[in-house]
Amino acid sequence: MFILDNKGRQPLHDKIYNQIKNQILSGQLPPATKLLSIKNLSAELSVSRNTVEYAYQQLYAEGYIHSKPRSGYYVSLIDPEFLPSSFSHIGMTPRKVSEDRIVYSFDFHPACLSSESFPTNLWRKLYIESLQEDSEQLAFYSDQQGDFALRSEIQRYLAHSRGVSCDPEQIVICSGLQDSLSIIAPILKENHSTFAVEDPGHFMPKAVFRNHSFAINPIPVNSEGLDLESLQKTNSTVVYVTPSHQFPLGYVMPVANRLKLIDWAETVGGVIIEDDYDSELRYHGRPIPALQGLHPGANIVYVGTFSKVLSPALRVSYMVLPYRLLTIYRKLFSDYSTNVSLLDQRTLNKFMEKGNWERHLRKMRTIYKRKHDELIQSIHHHFGSKANIIGQGAGLHVVLELVGNSLTEGELINRARDRDVQLLPISGMYFNNTGRDPQIMLGFGRMSSNEIDRGIGLLYQAWNL
Amino acid sequence: MFILDNKGRQPLHDKIYNQIKNQILSGQLPPATKLLSIKNLSAELSVSRNTVEYAYQQLYAEGYIHSKPRSGYYVSLIDPEFLPSSFSHIGMTPRKVSEDRIVYSFDFHPACLSSESFPTNLWRKLYIESLQEDSEQLAFYSDQQGDFALRSEIQRYLAHSRGVSCDPEQIVICSGLQDSLSIIAPILKENHSTFAVEDPGHFMPKAVFRNHSFAINPIPVNSEGLDLESLQKTNSTVVYVTPSHQFPLGYVMPVANRLKLIDWAETVGGVIIEDDYDSELRYHGRPIPALQGLHPGANIVYVGTFSKVLSPALRVSYMVLPYRLLTIYRKLFSDYSTNVSLLDQRTLNKFMEKGNWERHLRKMRTIYKRKHDELIQSIHHHFGSKANIIGQGAGLHVVLELVGNSLTEGELINRARDRDVQLLPISGMYFNNTGRDPQIMLGFGRMSSNEIDRGIGLLYQAWNL
Repeated sequence: MFILDNKGRQPLHDKIYNQIKNQILSGQLPPATKLLSIKNLSAELSVSRNTVEYAYQQLYAEGYIHSKPRSGYYVSLIDPEFLPSSFSHIGMTPRKVSEDRIVYSFDFHPACLSSESFPTNLWRKLYIESLQEDSEQLAFYSDQQGDFALRSEIQRYLAHSRGVSCDPEQIVICSGLQDSLSIIAPILKENHSTFAVEDPGHFMPKAVFRNHSFAINPIPVNSEGLDLESLQKTNSTVVYVTPSHQFPLGYVMPVANRLKLIDWAETVGGVIIEDDYDSELRYHGRPIPALQGLHPGANIVYVGTFSKVLSPALRVSYMVLPYRLLTIYRKLFSDYSTNVSLLDQRTLNKFMEKGNWERHLRKMRTIYKRKHDELIQSIHHHFGSKANIIGQGAGLHVVLELVGNSLTEGELINRARDRDVQLLPISGMYFNNTGRDPQIMLGFGRMSSNEIDRGIGLLYQAWNL
Repeated sequence: MFILDNKGRQPLHDKIYNQIKNQILSGQLPPATKLLSIKNLSAELSVSRNTVEYAYQQLYAEGYIHSKPRSGYYVSLIDPEFLPSSFSHIGMTPRKVSEDRIVYSFDFHPACLSSESFPTNLWRKLYIESLQEDSEQLAFYSDQQGDFALRSEIQRYLAHSRGVSCDPEQIVICSGLQDSLSIIAPILKENHSTFAVEDPGHFMPKAVFRNHSFAINPIPVNSEGLDLESLQKTNSTVVYVTPSHQFPLGYVMPVANRLKLIDWAETVGGVIIEDDYDSELRYHGRPIPALQGLHPGANIVYVGTFSKVLSPALRVSYMVLPYRLLTIYRKLFSDYSTNVSLLDQRTLNKFMEKGNWERHLRKMRTIYKRKHDELIQSIHHHFGSKANIIGQGAGLHVVLELVGNSLTEGELINRARDRDVQLLPISGMYFNNTGRDPQIMLGFGRMSSNEIDRGIGLLYQAWNL
């Protein structure tokens, strides 16, 4: 029911837009409700069709409604961020709109790569070659564990650049961390029920293992990474760690601790899941070899990805299973198919085989090192002693700790957004969120030199430090 | 330790090959053992390097060994089919080598598509376009539920060609049945614990739901598909069905039964997983609309794929979640990423958007109808009344039932292999494997007209009917 007043300076189409928007937000128009047709609503309101169409276009562009061909417009599910709490009675949990959809002038989101990260021209060439050579193979289901030639390339790369010791037969090509973990969880389920994770830590391992009915044990992180004493006090027998670059704090686990962690696993019959997600990107000092290489016979699952240096939208990663778990994998997963396109695997194989992967790595390391160093310099310049930098020297982000600041994370992020600066909250990665100075993740992958310095300057202003 | 006799007509390289092969098969050389280098073994045996290299190449080609660059040759894990039982003490469950690796002159494997099934040239063109247009997006994680434009195309296609009624927001782009089911299982886990499947039926749903700790209830299949009375007698509240073309027997569930099945779900608070995997391929009579369209509000998860008409190696499929389950999906999976490459999604979107998908469907339907009809005719011609054909008129295979034949399935398949004819056993799809005449699946997707008739003739000879 529409009531259109003719007062006020607001254009008619804005009034219609606002009224429908409010009815959607308040739950008066629940998701999947069909809107009146443009023709009917314009007749009802005695306005031109263009006016109604303009309002609908606006609602459509903002995601409040969507169209079904030959049917009309319908109310969409709405992002909870935009919903008043009164909407919750409808019983829908609307979808998290992925944050990369909103374009900010200064984007410090840590999961964004440089626009140079994807070698478009070379990929095109190699993909076309694969399409030519392997199109016969597209009529069949491909190898469930992944293309053997690609696995051999990955084995070679891991051996000489990460110190990982394995056989191509131990490698499973996956479509990202969620895929690897969704395979690991059922494999471990038989003998394990409690899963230890870093606190703060990556959100995904918790989600996957929870979906496989594991109890989750958060283990605090200190400047040497996962706190081993805390781990030993729990009843967990499976642990997810990021020893070479703790996510999100960036700490490195020293070798002595790595050996202790392996000892722990041997003692309790435990399993270590080592996520080496961005260890290629180390800008100062020597690269830190993987934990797995210290004791290849131990129950360590090594997980790596192409998402941080090539593209997170390509969905290719890999894991290395110790032989004991490989046996269970082959028992439980023999009826599964791979999640990864054969053409992408073949293209990637060509990319690695011809040395392009390592060349690309060197190139990206140089690009990101420059951005990283500029970011550090800019933070020192603008913030001086008002902020500490945590986890510098590697990866695609650092963590900024604001000394003695009393703004909440929400306030920090909102003030930044008001100046067109995008930040990802870190609090969701903590189980225990109290008793620390506010922290902000600063991803630099996407930013130009100029943007980095201007963005940091804007943050300093926005926060009135 | 090698002992090379100089007797016999066997060439030297064959002797070396056989000796190593037997040592691998007997477990004397366990997996991951390093072989002597070509240089050292040739010195030890006093034969030329070429001789050893030839033997190694042969072992390599047959998958007994693999090479590690700059390291040498190692013993591989071996397919259990080729292993004597004495090998089992090693405690490895070797990997199922995918059967498409072995090339037979006559390949009746039901999961093989026609070589015309992949539109290589058009795909190349559209992929390049996507790469051009969307390369910026490759620096980000893409939409977890799948590209919205592709979901809209799928919604439109499903609405008009399968009678499925849904909203693009209900669609999740997946990387195949195992991906869809791996999402559905945790969603259902909260309220359900027993999973009913068709007997005989697809192997994958059992595997996935077992990995999520569901109890599995086999329900017999009759000529009207899943036997509803049997279902009602169980305590299952989730059922996986293939109503439009029962896999593997090809029966169609009549509308009356479909309505009863929906009634059952409403009564017990149950959930129906409808796998509509190849319903595009119906050669006689009108297509059968999906179960989901009969009651879009019911708890029906609709699952479909591009694997049967485009390519099983591309790994793109989709599912439609009812709103009630969508809510849980968004709660449990909000921290997951999609398994499907953005470029493949964008390419497929272009393919569908421009009408190519439906054109391709029509083309493939014509090609497969011809092959199907030739197969039926050839079976009648060669087998006459000695075989019944089950499940004709749709899909990529029929089932041949041998009347009053006493050969076991293994014997039937081995005799066929001896004549270079490849068959996939059906017994693994049955829980209850007794008290029926022998059945053989005959896939015709891959076969030419000539091959179909020659292959069927060879089978008739091989089986001495």
